[in-house]
Amino acid sequence: MNARAQFDRLRVVLVKTRNPLNLGAVARAMSNFGFLRLRVVNPFEPSFREARSAVGASDLLASAEEFNSLAEAVADCTLVVGTTAGGRRNLQLPLRPLTEGARLIRKRLGAGPVALLFGSERTGLSNEDFCHCHWLMRIPARQEHRSLNLAQAVAICLYELVRDSKAALPREKEKLAAAADLERVCEVTFDVLRLSGYMKLRYEAPTKEKVRRMIRRHHLSPGDAEAWLGMLRQILWKMRAENPHGAS
Amino acid sequence: MNARAQFDRLRVVLVKTRNPLNLGAVARAMSNFGFLRLRVVNPFEPSFREARSAVGASDLLASAEEFNSLAEAVADCTLVVGTTAGGRRNLQLPLRPLTEGARLIRKRLGAGPVALLFGSERTGLSNEDFCHCHWLMRIPARQEHRSLNLAQAVAICLYELVRDSKAALPREKEKLAAAADLERVCEVTFDVLRLSGYMKLRYEAPTKEKVRRMIRRHHLSPGDAEAWLGMLRQILWKMRAENPHGAS
Repeated sequence: MNARAQFDRLRVVLVKTRNPLNLGAVARAMSNFGFLRLRVVNPFEPSFREARSAVGASDLLASAEEFNSLAEAVADCTLVVGTTAGGRRNLQLPLRPLTEGARLIRKRLGAGPVALLFGSERTGLSNEDFCHCHWLMRIPARQEHRSLNLAQAVAICLYELVRDSKAALPREKEKLAAAADLERVCEVTFDVLRLSGYMKLRYEAPTKEKVRRMIRRHHLSPGDAEAWLGMLRQILWKMRAENPHGAS
Repeated sequence: MNARAQFDRLRVVLVKTRNPLNLGAVARAMSNFGFLRLRVVNPFEPSFREARSAVGASDLLASAEEFNSLAEAVADCTLVVGTTAGGRRNLQLPLRPLTEGARLIRKRLGAGPVALLFGSERTGLSNEDFCHCHWLMRIPARQEHRSLNLAQAVAICLYELVRDSKAALPREKEKLAAAADLERVCEVTFDVLRLSGYMKLRYEAPTKEKVRRMIRRHHLSPGDAEAWLGMLRQILWKMRAENPHGAS
């Protein structure tokens, strides 16, 4: 089963959401991360209508399923996970950090539909809602300010779910210039420094050493080395043209 | 150095943000995850005023620093990271997935202040903004719908930074030159290139862009920046002495 088919088994369930902007923002995040099944339970009706009819409202929002009870909304799911800011109540349910919870959810999506629940902006999920959950998941916000914006909480949970399914890009390895190229850059730099009077005859050795080391610290790519050579040669040419006797 | 002190070194930089709700939501996410330093560059002024004066606006928003240019906003930072939906343009900068980028940022917060840049809601960061970046970071949204809501993008990046901050840890690392120092190196380089005839008047902009990017790829230490400045100024002095009329 591929990731896309698995993602299709996740139901994001919003319980009693009040703010139409949040509904829109949740739908956008779901679309960003490829989770397309939204369910709403007793939304604040005017908000739901407004969100659905907003300019640019997504198909995802248009096809959201509406339920009158949480029990109905999660009826087909083999795992029901609640989210919480945590720490306030005696929850009597396992509380997992998001990283661990997301890993478990990914595994269980292979077996059947999974519901991920988010409560209202003001009160979160109620104790009654928690009764429908197998366990709870918490986003690790700091103690001084735990309560996350609803749409941001959804975005973060979905991000964690896709994070290391193969979504990660193949990494571009940076190419580095060969030693010979670096040495060419050094040699032209020496010429310019000599002509400018920066490198005095009697201190040539330490200056060269310093410049060699520095240029090797700079992680030059082959293209960078080429570019520096071009600039330095032009500078050198100009200096020589204006100082034909090579005095320094 | 503990995680809290390290987080204090991150500057979230919003460039040309337009929507006051986004400003508020960004501030909230920052507070949730313990990053308290917000900088704004040329925000849409009425929005910025509105966000700051909103009921419940955070101290964080009240103490946000405002700048007229990106260069000033990142001047004290030793690493500047741009964010992008990616995939549209030839960006000429390393593009790292968020997981890898966040790991690098955490490491580099041990060495000095790091700027994390977010562009405007409509256009993201511009090519000119990218010139101030060392590399770019991309949140792995799906190809069909890459563009994330600004505040959600910020929340996800910050979440990824704290996610396993306990795992990754603080090592005071090699010191790196601040953005203002790099910019000084660039400016003197421009003067030298102009005088040498390498930088033609009509092609100044692309050449400057190329040089700015290159120098930011070079991992200059404060000492390296100082050394380059010394050499370049001597070269400049010599060229001016021999070409007092400044012709090129």
